[in-house]
Amino acid sequence: MNYQDKKVTDLKIAYIGGGSRGWAWTFMTDLALAPEISGRVYLYDIDKQAARDNEIIGNSILKNNPEHNNFTYIAAHTYEAALTGADFVIISIMPGTFDEMESDVHAPEKYGIYQSVGDTTSFGGIFRAMRTLPMFFEFAEQIKKYCPNAFVINYTNPMALCVAALYKAFPEIKAFGCCHEVFGTKSFLGTVLKEELGVEKPVREEVNLNIVGVNHFTWAISGHYKNYDIFPIYRKYCEKNHECGVSGGTYKNWMNDHFMSAEKVKMDLFLKFGYIAAAGDRHLAEFCPPSWYLKNPETVYNWGFQLTSVKWRKEDLLWRLDMKDKLISGEKQIEIKPTGEEGVLQIMALLGLKNITTNVNLPNLGQIPNVPFGAVVETNAFFSAGKIIPVHAGEIPLSIKPLIDNNIAVQMMTLEAAWERSTEKAYIAFSSQLQNSLSQNDSRELFDTMFENTKEYLNDYN
Amino acid sequence: MNYQDKKVTDLKIAYIGGGSRGWAWTFMTDLALAPEISGRVYLYDIDKQAARDNEIIGNSILKNNPEHNNFTYIAAHTYEAALTGADFVIISIMPGTFDEMESDVHAPEKYGIYQSVGDTTSFGGIFRAMRTLPMFFEFAEQIKKYCPNAFVINYTNPMALCVAALYKAFPEIKAFGCCHEVFGTKSFLGTVLKEELGVEKPVREEVNLNIVGVNHFTWAISGHYKNYDIFPIYRKYCEKNHECGVSGGTYKNWMNDHFMSAEKVKMDLFLKFGYIAAAGDRHLAEFCPPSWYLKNPETVYNWGFQLTSVKWRKEDLLWRLDMKDKLISGEKQIEIKPTGEEGVLQIMALLGLKNITTNVNLPNLGQIPNVPFGAVVETNAFFSAGKIIPVHAGEIPLSIKPLIDNNIAVQMMTLEAAWERSTEKAYIAFSSQLQNSLSQNDSRELFDTMFENTKEYLNDYN
Amino acid sequence: MNYQDKKVTDLKIAYIGGGSRGWAWTFMTDLALAPEISGRVYLYDIDKQAARDNEIIGNSILKNNPEHNNFTYIAAHTYEAALTGADFVIISIMPGTFDEMESDVHAPEKYGIYQSVGDTTSFGGIFRAMRTLPMFFEFAEQIKKYCPNAFVINYTNPMALCVAALYKAFPEIKAFGCCHEVFGTKSFLGTVLKEELGVEKPVREEVNLNIVGVNHFTWAISGHYKNYDIFPIYRKYCEKNHECGVSGGTYKNWMNDHFMSAEKVKMDLFLKFGYIAAAGDRHLAEFCPPSWYLKNPETVYNWGFQLTSVKWRKEDLLWRLDMKDKLISGEKQIEIKPTGEEGVLQIMALLGLKNITTNVNLPNLGQIPNVPFGAVVETNAFFSAGKIIPVHAGEIPLSIKPLIDNNIAVQMMTLEAAWERSTEKAYIAFSSQLQNSLSQNDSRELFDTMFENTKEYLNDYN
Amino acid sequence: MNYQDKKVTDLKIAYIGGGSRGWAWTFMTDLALAPEISGRVYLYDIDKQAARDNEIIGNSILKNNPEHNNFTYIAAHTYEAALTGADFVIISIMPGTFDEMESDVHAPEKYGIYQSVGDTTSFGGIFRAMRTLPMFFEFAEQIKKYCPNAFVINYTNPMALCVAALYKAFPEIKAFGCCHEVFGTKSFLGTVLKEELGVEKPVREEVNLNIVGVNHFTWAISGHYKNYDIFPIYRKYCEKNHECGVSGGTYKNWMNDHFMSAEKVKMDLFLKFGYIAAAGDRHLAEFCPPSWYLKNPETVYNWGFQLTSVKWRKEDLLWRLDMKDKLISGEKQIEIKPTGEEGVLQIMALLGLKNITTNVNLPNLGQIPNVPFGAVVETNAFFSAGKIIPVHAGEIPLSIKPLIDNNIAVQMMTLEAAWERSTEKAYIAFSSQLQNSLSQNDSRELFDTMFENTKEYLNDYN
Repeated sequence: MNYQDKKVTDLKIAYIGGGSRGWAWTFMTDLALAPEISGRVYLYDIDKQAARDNEIIGNSILKNNPEHNNFTYIAAHTYEAALTGADFVIISIMPGTFDEMESDVHAPEKYGIYQSVGDTTSFGGIFRAMRTLPMFFEFAEQIKKYCPNAFVINYTNPMALCVAALYKAFPEIKAFGCCHEVFGTKSFLGTVLKEELGVEKPVREEVNLNIVGVNHFTWAISGHYKNYDIFPIYRKYCEKNHECGVSGGTYKNWMNDHFMSAEKVKMDLFLKFGYIAAAGDRHLAEFCPPSWYLKNPETVYNWGFQLTSVKWRKEDLLWRLDMKDKLISGEKQIEIKPTGEEGVLQIMALLGLKNITTNVNLPNLGQIPNVPFGAVVETNAFFSAGKIIPVHAGEIPLSIKPLIDNNIAVQMMTLEAAWERSTEKAYIAFSSQLQNSLSQNDSRELFDTMFENTKEYLNDYN
Repeated sequence: MNYQDKKVTDLKIAYIGGGSRGWAWTFMTDLALAPEISGRVYLYDIDKQAARDNEIIGNSILKNNPEHNNFTYIAAHTYEAALTGADFVIISIMPGTFDEMESDVHAPEKYGIYQSVGDTTSFGGIFRAMRTLPMFFEFAEQIKKYCPNAFVINYTNPMALCVAALYKAFPEIKAFGCCHEVFGTKSFLGTVLKEELGVEKPVREEVNLNIVGVNHFTWAISGHYKNYDIFPIYRKYCEKNHECGVSGGTYKNWMNDHFMSAEKVKMDLFLKFGYIAAAGDRHLAEFCPPSWYLKNPETVYNWGFQLTSVKWRKEDLLWRLDMKDKLISGEKQIEIKPTGEEGVLQIMALLGLKNITTNVNLPNLGQIPNVPFGAVVETNAFFSAGKIIPVHAGEIPLSIKPLIDNNIAVQMMTLEAAWERSTEKAYIAFSSQLQNSLSQNDSRELFDTMFENTKEYLNDYN
Repeated sequence: MNYQDKKVTDLKIAYIGGGSRGWAWTFMTDLALAPEISGRVYLYDIDKQAARDNEIIGNSILKNNPEHNNFTYIAAHTYEAALTGADFVIISIMPGTFDEMESDVHAPEKYGIYQSVGDTTSFGGIFRAMRTLPMFFEFAEQIKKYCPNAFVINYTNPMALCVAALYKAFPEIKAFGCCHEVFGTKSFLGTVLKEELGVEKPVREEVNLNIVGVNHFTWAISGHYKNYDIFPIYRKYCEKNHECGVSGGTYKNWMNDHFMSAEKVKMDLFLKFGYIAAAGDRHLAEFCPPSWYLKNPETVYNWGFQLTSVKWRKEDLLWRLDMKDKLISGEKQIEIKPTGEEGVLQIMALLGLKNITTNVNLPNLGQIPNVPFGAVVETNAFFSAGKIIPVHAGEIPLSIKPLIDNNIAVQMMTLEAAWERSTEKAYIAFSSQLQNSLSQNDSRELFDTMFENTKEYLNDYN
Repeated sequence: MNYQDKKVTDLKIAYIGGGSRGWAWTFMTDLALAPEISGRVYLYDIDKQAARDNEIIGNSILKNNPEHNNFTYIAAHTYEAALTGADFVIISIMPGTFDEMESDVHAPEKYGIYQSVGDTTSFGGIFRAMRTLPMFFEFAEQIKKYCPNAFVINYTNPMALCVAALYKAFPEIKAFGCCHEVFGTKSFLGTVLKEELGVEKPVREEVNLNIVGVNHFTWAISGHYKNYDIFPIYRKYCEKNHECGVSGGTYKNWMNDHFMSAEKVKMDLFLKFGYIAAAGDRHLAEFCPPSWYLKNPETVYNWGFQLTSVKWRKEDLLWRLDMKDKLISGEKQIEIKPTGEEGVLQIMALLGLKNITTNVNLPNLGQIPNVPFGAVVETNAFFSAGKIIPVHAGEIPLSIKPLIDNNIAVQMMTLEAAWERSTEKAYIAFSSQLQNSLSQNDSRELFDTMFENTKEYLNDYN
């Protein structure tokens, strides 16, 4: 890379999973809107055609938006080609197909276990991790080999475990994970502040939250807007609205505008524990004992959110494939407008162009002193030239700590199981989760079924 | 006190709750069997007649067993009389009557919540603590005033919170809590070793366990007998017996020989988590999500243990009162034989007569590095002249940590609530426990009912 | 205060030590250059005339610079008047007179002990703390009474102990301490980067340092400029220059432009320990064993810095008094140009106007996990609306940790001594410092002499 | 091994450094006095003749003392022969010859640096470690290969680093280090108690100390004898005796009865810091800034202890070789009487024969929460069947922490240097020690000289 005035040119960015039909396009849009940086993006994907498709789509931005022509896209068919000399690496992959995900999400339903997402925690999350983590060990090895000094940004779920896997295989890696769930909560809190204070809806940057926890089960333990403490304002709002819920969702963009909720889970958790859960209700519910919000589909309905079926995901994929064809043919174009994601802002900060402080997923070095060091946690972090330093978020409050601890314990046990490809250790993680109230016999039977269903991706487990 | 050869004379022991019709008699027996020490025991009780009764019973030991006449018993009607100059203080009280305990244990049943003991954790444990802790703050104040250097041994439940309360009110207090539940597990493991190895049943001192956790939810994270690792032996035993359970209980003495179980919960927990739960099944069950072992009376029955009804306790009390009359009249006598309790051994060790290492409840100073400092935990400790030093038990393993954390979090929140006499903080503790899957409305209603039922003992809560 | 568009009006700032003839004028200048905020500044000083003088000087800024007339200055003669309703409190006082400081700095010289500043650490620092801390306990009490929610900025030395004293007396206080020594090092590193890389001298914001340690003995454990790691560049520079030193100082402003050094101590410490000491050489030297840089005046001279005599300070005071008269008479005017201090930027960030991340002194909550919690340490921190969150700076490296530990140990012992007004505990702190190689007899004699010399300010010590 | 009644037979003990002419004979004596255990001792030594000599000497005990014939001695010439199937491994070696030690101790004298022992810390300690640690890495590898479950007892200096090296190379090793310095202090305190209280001199087991620190710089932070707190008694004694010192030493046995001191350093450290230094004065002095007790030979003399010259050690060796010949010829016999060492008691405890609690060197797992985890520290530990658990000794007090920290920092840096065979990292350790007040040029020159002097043992350093 080169520094020229306030600009950086000749950046090399490698994108693992570069054939993505979602995040890749978001990322292209954000890059196009960052004139301070320019260079090349290498798209690597095991689906080589998908990488080539995105090369075309990416470069069409140039053609269609000559004022935003800062980056060139190149499909790269080997790690060596993609990674050598990279300054940044983006990882956003789909581990397995939706058939495996169907097992993750729906196989437990026969035992009365419902999961609203199934990609992060609990029964589905463990199996998704079992097949994903070996891939991430491999990515880390390749990065160590070809670009050990690159910053690595992960967008793949299970977020915490994917980031943890990168550090397990290459402890010196400069990796972190990004997720927009907290932004959604900030937007919801903006609405709350608007309604309660009668002000114009504050923008994201005005809603200051001190964040602790794990990805998708993140909590604000303090919050300020101007000279207001957000907590008493939010309490008043929750006491009024927790039974009926709010109409309309809190976070919408073209990628997932159907993922709405009535925010009832979030408000219930606030009244129960006294802290602000900062993720979508679909995610939050999965981290709690199943009898709370996921007892059965009717309970879910009453709590004002939806179980995301894999059937829907398969239909959505068809829509994305169609969109891809239209983007290639030029029938449609990617609209160049801000997406609300922060990956590109983080890249600019790490280049020394403009510091930012935002929430990310990093190994715990003590930024949360009362959870195990090494576990991947989500807090704010300060991004400046060459360095990410988490803020010292502080201790997780007592009331919410046990549920977070449960997730971290399962995270660490699953990581070890995947590292050793140990089916038996994976079972202990599966058996130990608080969400698992099955008898030992049922628990073992379900585990074996889910293993069998997804065995194509688990063949090196012993 | 005075040292003479290998003996200590002129000891002064104060017994708060000295009218007890159970522990007091056990303690008298053990004292009688310790010829190395002698002196006076001052019995203090708010039921002054009960203290006077025990003065008679205690002194009758002298008369009936002239070879064991080392201690004199004196009913003391003020703290000043009981505590001034005391070398040791024993605390064993009943907070409130069985009517309050009836509310603790049975009021939640209307909401489908069953508790097998109800005196340590969960719904009943919180309310018992709310009325007990202010008494313990008072005890600590009196000890600070009259005998700040005395060692203080607590036997009252909720054990962890009672000990924590003493330290809260008088941080320099030299207090610890004793409980025999771990001894019961050692006895059960002795049986296991006997069956699996074909040896004579090992005695308690031969079953070496490294203990972590909280009282009544204590776990052995390693165990050795001679040059055997106990864990693989226990695993084999559990795999054979976990479905049917063992016949006959593991710990019997005249005080509670009806508290049997089939040890199925203990074996299930071992297979689930990989560590040895070291308390009675009745206690262990209460620390888990209620859907595991306490869903309803039938579930409990199938798991091979009993719900201890307060009706039974009331009947048992009548039996004890009758026994007391017979002891006073001389119709019966306390038999002078070892009880298996270790309080007197600990006293001798603290006097420098013979060191011992055994399990006790103490504030965490880091002996378990991964739970909050200050919380009262149970580990082994080394007792020698003038000092108790916990062993460095080490970290609680990941799989069992969340359930222990939940208990510790509720412990610390309840302590703060009691210290501030804050009904609202008590409610947050009540609402935050993982055992509570009630809706906010039901949760609040149950709390209010239990408060109303026991309000006679809660009148200074705001 | 009120928010209007991007501005905050009606701020109330209280200034304790508002008669200051240095910092107060700097602060006035910086306020004048911050059009986003406006309000009143209340000047409190035990020297009431000095406060009145500064009221005149402050308000003259308005008159002379009508474009900068955002703040009004008011001398306040009671804590109540100064503090009631304050949004921010500034503390910048002189504890005692230069006569006491003469004892602090020069009394130890009879025993062969030389101190280059004598206001932070070591022999002089302990005595300065002994008379300063009781004043700070009082400030904290008054703040608790009149403006408990105000942010409190301290500029007084000994910095770490003054901030610690505020938290000791009022644990919920929102206080922090500011010091410009790190800025000086950033400027020096800018010069290094300029010389080694042949670039234009980078500005302070471009020199990113991760900072750990205590005030005046702060260390950068990593540093980046654009995509450069500063450490190997600095090593090269030090190897070339450590013997001769650099000519010219590194940090000059009108307040202390004579405090120059050849940066030889700083470079020697880098070669010795491998980390960048980030304070002036005069300060750094005092934290090391005296045989290193302060053996005698000749050694000091050879290391390229000066012992700041109190004689010079007394002369400087005369100059300041003269300047004060001229400012009041209008013969001179304060020039309204940036001073390089960041207090006003921090105020704006805490109001939510513009986030910043900069180095400050705060109690350790774990931002440096390997020094005692509660000790006041210096790290970067993130300032945003309503909240300061330290960055998680990380562990102090092994090589430099013992010297920092020594200072922290003495800090904590001195705080306890001052809190209890215990001469005996103060002596243990004095005796325990690594800088003290005196025999027990000499050590005690020197302590007694220094106590006697400054007893006017120590009369409530027992 | 086999258990029979209360005895263990068929033990296999491997002794690395089994040709030792000191510790080996002590160990043989203690084994002979332990009728509860029996078996074989395999003597391994790079000096094969020395091993064969000790085989003869060991077996002569049988012959001469048929009532103590529980162990057979066998010289083993390979690791495989010595270690295969060993239940216990003893390590007691001499790293290099007294020629290397001459450099360690005396080379720094040219720079005005005096060391009283030179085998543990400071200049000599680092070089001794540099040549010793690679040997210990090798021992650990061999133990991992041939007897991974054996308990390993180290007696070699530098104690802390040797134990640390074993864990570095084989983290699961069950190793600990034994040292008798604390026993010496207990004996001295026994004398103090006798004089101050007018009692018979208490035996070692009656002087209960809670110990923290590192080997040879161990500190008692509390102490009890019966119902007495030892500290105020010791203070009184020190105030009377610190200037003159005590006549006669405190710890004498046939191995090192000339290592006397007047205990002045120990008493001075108590008055300075408030805690009881629990090692010989010769060792304690080396851990302090050199200007305190080791400025020059005259200072040493005035403090009442001696610099142990390597000349003396060489003469002592001649005496030992002569003794060896006489033991072999039968002209002399080893007298079978207790030596005061505890290695054999520890072995019996680990076999489950009789628990003990005593001081040992182990990696810090949190038994001292405020020093780095992993560093080897000395505290008490509880030995029972199959397990050593350190007591939770607690935090090192502030006043003594910096000097201990300095040693631990240098320990950890030296270990890393040795592990990587990095001369440069070794230099940083050497340069960072507080004892090093040399200029960078002198420091480097001395390091190079000491390296050159001992290069025969450092040839794989890069």
